[in-house]
Amino acid sequence: MTRDAADVADRLVRAGRRFDARGWVLGTSGNFSAVTSRDPLRLAITRSGTHKGELTAADILEYGEGRVLSGTGAASAETRLHLAIVAERGAGSVLHTHSIWSTLLSHRYAELKGLSGVTTHEHREWLPILDNDQDMERLSGAVVRVLLEHPDCHGFLLRRHGLYTWGADVAEAVRHVEILEFLLESVARSKEAASWRS
Amino acid sequence: MTRDAADVADRLVRAGRRFDARGWVLGTSGNFSAVTSRDPLRLAITRSGTHKGELTAADILEYGEGRVLSGTGAASAETRLHLAIVAERGAGSVLHTHSIWSTLLSHRYAELKGLSGVTTHEHREWLPILDNDQDMERLSGAVVRVLLEHPDCHGFLLRRHGLYTWGADVAEAVRHVEILEFLLESVARSKEAASWRS
Amino acid sequence: MTRDAADVADRLVRAGRRFDARGWVLGTSGNFSAVTSRDPLRLAITRSGTHKGELTAADILEYGEGRVLSGTGAASAETRLHLAIVAERGAGSVLHTHSIWSTLLSHRYAELKGLSGVTTHEHREWLPILDNDQDMERLSGAVVRVLLEHPDCHGFLLRRHGLYTWGADVAEAVRHVEILEFLLESVARSKEAASWRS
Amino acid sequence: MTRDAADVADRLVRAGRRFDARGWVLGTSGNFSAVTSRDPLRLAITRSGTHKGELTAADILEYGEGRVLSGTGAASAETRLHLAIVAERGAGSVLHTHSIWSTLLSHRYAELKGLSGVTTHEHREWLPILDNDQDMERLSGAVVRVLLEHPDCHGFLLRRHGLYTWGADVAEAVRHVEILEFLLESVARSKEAASWRS
Repeated sequence: MTRDAADVADRLVRAGRRFDARGWVLGTSGNFSAVTSRDPLRLAITRSGTHKGELTAADILEYGEGRVLSGTGAASAETRLHLAIVAERGAGSVLHTHSIWSTLLSHRYAELKGLSGVTTHEHREWLPILDNDQDMERLSGAVVRVLLEHPDCHGFLLRRHGLYTWGADVAEAVRHVEILEFLLESVARSKEAASWRS
Repeated sequence: MTRDAADVADRLVRAGRRFDARGWVLGTSGNFSAVTSRDPLRLAITRSGTHKGELTAADILEYGEGRVLSGTGAASAETRLHLAIVAERGAGSVLHTHSIWSTLLSHRYAELKGLSGVTTHEHREWLPILDNDQDMERLSGAVVRVLLEHPDCHGFLLRRHGLYTWGADVAEAVRHVEILEFLLESVARSKEAASWRS
Repeated sequence: MTRDAADVADRLVRAGRRFDARGWVLGTSGNFSAVTSRDPLRLAITRSGTHKGELTAADILEYGEGRVLSGTGAASAETRLHLAIVAERGAGSVLHTHSIWSTLLSHRYAELKGLSGVTTHEHREWLPILDNDQDMERLSGAVVRVLLEHPDCHGFLLRRHGLYTWGADVAEAVRHVEILEFLLESVARSKEAASWRS
Repeated sequence: MTRDAADVADRLVRAGRRFDARGWVLGTSGNFSAVTSRDPLRLAITRSGTHKGELTAADILEYGEGRVLSGTGAASAETRLHLAIVAERGAGSVLHTHSIWSTLLSHRYAELKGLSGVTTHEHREWLPILDNDQDMERLSGAVVRVLLEHPDCHGFLLRRHGLYTWGADVAEAVRHVEILEFLLESVARSKEAASWRS
């Protein structure tokens, strides 16, 4: 592992501990990646079946040319989604988390195909919702279509399967996870508040 | 303590810290075990009356042949349930947690004798609910009947007394706790969301 | 400080860190004590105005004969309540926490003067609710009357001011805090669940 | 950095870790300052774009005479608000957090221009709510007017942008954040409780 790859692995490990503390990667849910080379394209990506709150550097594999290049075990089953997002958005890091609020909202608002109530203080954010699919090739195609239809979106929800977001690097992607998860919880609690007696 | 037994004890201690951080083993609730030998059957099991977030190796007793084989103090009062689950399911580890959501749902849905709304993204999970009983022999018999009736279930709830689940080893059982607790919280919050104004 | 006093101080410091992690002693709320001598009666008690999650041994004062015997600063303003509980119940440790759920329930159910919905799996627990009072002598008298009227209660709520509970030693008192706070959250969430559509 | 400045920086770093653990400074939200000199007026203030849970001393800049005096990067975009609060209140530390509950309540009660339901056990606390504004000069003027109109208030909310509070030093300001955030959560949950069936 080069020094850069070690640094990237360390950042993914720490992202896992942060998200675990918030309950966003329970069980073995979630998967994380970061681009380590653009040409040829190579990703550092979490090993399948790992607990994201207890990652070590050995759980971060190097992936490229359609296969695991270094490290033991299989890359996340959703590696194809990470590659699609990197290709479409030029992202340097892709993070997938699976929180209660993203699960709840993606289930409840699936019919609308998106959440328009997600608003930051500067602008209104649109978060598309896709049906989940165990066929990764088909799901990857659906993801690409959604990214093309929503060129400004910073993430999307897979129905009952959580959030995908990305950034120029791991730090920015972590920030996007935190902002979007915050907004999702805000939306859900605002829905509860709508039934308060004034 | 053999090296394997020390390793198992360490895994149970760490499971306790994880669950305590989430509020799933408050007070002295919960109890954990892991099989250390199949023939003769021996369990590492938490000492009765301990706080699961502050376990040390000395709080993990060795149990077999109907008695504590090594360590000081009494084995968990629910040791018999652990033994029944090990026998019926061939489990390598049994974990019992006592969260708010499992308590709430087991109380509310007791009349249905189970929760059908617990769904992972691959399949629908059935979580039986048993009345709790201070007579451990009778309760253990009830558990065996439920396990025979529901050969696919990965856990069950004791009414107002939390969750039992298991796995091939401690790591898998911990993963099952986290997935089932996540699903229970999701079910409860979905019920709340059902009364939102669209 | 004797070795026993140092041990008691350490236990109170650790209780503070546990409760702080759960959000039960925000700001400078809460106060803790433990009996270090019965005859003459002496308490280790938290200094007034301290953050309970960041206590050090220097924040635990020795109190007896109506004054601070060792340590710098004033004993908690509620020392008199601790002394009343020690006298009435023979407690070895008294702990006061101030959580969201105890505040909410004590406010909502004040008119009933108590919570009967607090139930453990063995028996029904009665948690009296007293009006808070800045006159500590009068409040202390009210506490004594409540303890005499409810000889089986393991704690009480001060309206909008949180929970008092106690135990034979710090470990038992900590356990009682955790069980009662768990029950209070369970009661509150059960009230919310009562309006779910089946 | 003088020893005092190092001490102040350390206190702001630790405040960030505390608030992050509670989810009050997700993403890069929040900003913190403390007065290090009165004449000339100098602030230690968090660098723009930092994660408040992962601050190091290098993220705390020295600001005075309208510019960054030491440290690399830009001071928080909201430095002007900190200066206005220091000038109006004589505060020694100003802290801004961005929690779910402050966001929710400031959104819901914006039309009332304030929250009167925020009550401590001694007195009723008034928390003004201001519309947020990206023009910091205009917003700073609005803050000054609100502080003059409400000479007793200990904080205010920016609509959908969280809480500002202050204190004589960092420790007191941290205490005010914790008390006000606790009260905001209490108010929100009381509103939910108002629809419980008795």
